[in-house]
Amino acid sequence: MLKEGERLLEGLWGEVRELSLGNRIQRLDSAPTPLQFLRDFVSPNKPCIISNAISHWPALTRWPSLSYLSSTLSNSIVSLHLTPDGRADSLVPLENPKKEEICFASAHVERVPFPFALDLVLNPERKNLVAYLQQQNDCFREEYSALASDCDAHIPWATEALGGYLPEAVNLWIGNHLSETSFHKDHYENLYAVVSGEKQFLLLPPTDMHRMYIQDFPAAQYSYSSDSGEFRLELEKPLRYVPWCSVNPYPSPETKEIEMSKFPLYFNGPTPFHCTVKAGEILYLPSMWFHHVRQSPDDNGCTIAINYCKNQFDIKYAYFNFLQSIHHGSRLMNCDASKCTLSDELCIDASELEANQEDTKDG
Amino acid sequence: MLKEGERLLEGLWGEVRELSLGNRIQRLDSAPTPLQFLRDFVSPNKPCIISNAISHWPALTRWPSLSYLSSTLSNSIVSLHLTPDGRADSLVPLENPKKEEICFASAHVERVPFPFALDLVLNPERKNLVAYLQQQNDCFREEYSALASDCDAHIPWATEALGGYLPEAVNLWIGNHLSETSFHKDHYENLYAVVSGEKQFLLLPPTDMHRMYIQDFPAAQYSYSSDSGEFRLELEKPLRYVPWCSVNPYPSPETKEIEMSKFPLYFNGPTPFHCTVKAGEILYLPSMWFHHVRQSPDDNGCTIAINYCKNQFDIKYAYFNFLQSIHHGSRLMNCDASKCTLSDELCIDASELEANQEDTKDG
Repeated sequence: MLKEGERLLEGLWGEVRELSLGNRIQRLDSAPTPLQFLRDFVSPNKPCIISNAISHWPALTRWPSLSYLSSTLSNSIVSLHLTPDGRADSLVPLENPKKEEICFASAHVERVPFPFALDLVLNPERKNLVAYLQQQNDCFREEYSALASDCDAHIPWATEALGGYLPEAVNLWIGNHLSETSFHKDHYENLYAVVSGEKQFLLLPPTDMHRMYIQDFPAAQYSYSSDSGEFRLELEKPLRYVPWCSVNPYPSPETKEIEMSKFPLYFNGPTPFHCTVKAGEILYLPSMWFHHVRQSPDDNGCTIAINYCKNQFDIKYAYFNFLQSIHHGSRLMNCDASKCTLSDELCIDASELEANQEDTKDG
Repeated sequence: MLKEGERLLEGLWGEVRELSLGNRIQRLDSAPTPLQFLRDFVSPNKPCIISNAISHWPALTRWPSLSYLSSTLSNSIVSLHLTPDGRADSLVPLENPKKEEICFASAHVERVPFPFALDLVLNPERKNLVAYLQQQNDCFREEYSALASDCDAHIPWATEALGGYLPEAVNLWIGNHLSETSFHKDHYENLYAVVSGEKQFLLLPPTDMHRMYIQDFPAAQYSYSSDSGEFRLELEKPLRYVPWCSVNPYPSPETKEIEMSKFPLYFNGPTPFHCTVKAGEILYLPSMWFHHVRQSPDDNGCTIAINYCKNQFDIKYAYFNFLQSIHHGSRLMNCDASKCTLSDELCIDASELEANQEDTKDG
């Protein structure tokens, strides 16, 4: 690996922490004003956790009562994600007779009546599967409209700070302790309110993107047969590639050493930000921040959260994209250029740089 | 030049315009709210011109009357900058018996009674010199306190948006049509209010830094002898180097072709933003934006402006610094690595990259 490139990146990781982020996620005891939220968090692209901002939501007392949810949603058809182990949208070895290959696996999704779905979430052992009630395509407003009056349609101070328009998507998440979301980033500003149970987030700023070893992985899909009770994982046809973070931050004791040697920038760099978001709290997760999520259930065995998404594109997004486009390929990042996450035009590969340099010498 | 690196940079210049900046400076007809200013301009690092925000300042009617200024400041000692041609803090060929060298020339500065200084500003032909009343170290509050009640101590909506503290510096500028400020950037948020006459700004966003061909130049100082009426320009001792933009956006017809071939990224890239700020208007000049300033005088022959500065460091500053640290040196920017503006640790030089790549091959 090129020491110089690595040192430049390390400088960036350190500078953003020194200038702005510090070493822990800031906590607010009450809702900020729109101006304060924008000035202290959105503009500098800095996360925070806010307590006592949703205390007035009926959801906080109603949703932990599962009978309330089942009766209110008795006629609702909802999207249920099924996986063998709780890891959807994550990297999974694909059993392939020719060679072992890592793929990006998506859950088997079924639309089912809510009471049936909730029962599967709460009893993972019964059918030996992990069910997660979620659908990131605005599912709260689409599938859970019966719950609309239990919480606010938007977070007023955030809406005002982010331009005055309602969120582009509002999503509901009901899962158990087995569900885990692997490291990834989203391009929108995200307000993540936990209603029951708690969520543990690992966070890395956008400047640390090279520590995530983003690569292209072939997309695969779980399919579940309720007859056999078994999952099959198959590559999508035609093949489609998804850029995804390679790092598993919690490797098993047996694989830890290998993982640490494969992803040194992650494991040897600055400690990721870690925070627990409890029922009644909101995490502001700024656009382009990498996040990994695990959860602990309430007494009923589930974790319930709702998040509000708002697109936001400005100079920070342009900087991010540029940073992503460079120092990639084998020269500076010690990664396999043939698996580069970027389109060919953007990946600076060693051979290409050399060829170009010859041009310069000749010209 | 490496085509690949150039294409990456061009992509960045285009993306920031497409996502956020558009192709002209936005104008507001009245003062924005703090929230609007922060959301639409500061957070996305986007300039704007605001009319009718300082209409209540007595300065607008008082300062164009030079007799008012002279009598109010009759006892004030102020800093006066003298140059032979109106170009201070700019690149000037240094006459050197050995070789022609370009240096970064600072004005001769004298502290003199205001009425004497103003007379020199207004009559450049009398002593064949260009006088500019300015001093960027908070001169308005230091030297011009007699004028304090003629304008606001700060711009209230900007102060609230930028953290609630008063500006770190407030500077007054009184010059004639000959004074010109060469391309450079400042690390602070800048509100630039024109009180009399008008200013023409050329602006380039921070993402376009490589188009400025920033290099280190030896610092030199004008000294003016009132006895001989002549300027001498001498290098500072010990030698000190100042990183500065190499581009003169308005080359003379004779040098235009040479300049265009020396700085193709500037002359062939997207047209710089251009705007005229008239008396009574404010330009919000975001941190790290490159700006070149010329001015047209009022009927009395001078241009008067006041600007308010506020430091602001966050992830955008970290991105800027990183961008500055890379794609520099001869490999990607076709510039002379030996004159690199960056400390040795940060400049990626071709030879170093090659050496490092050998390391990679061996390791």
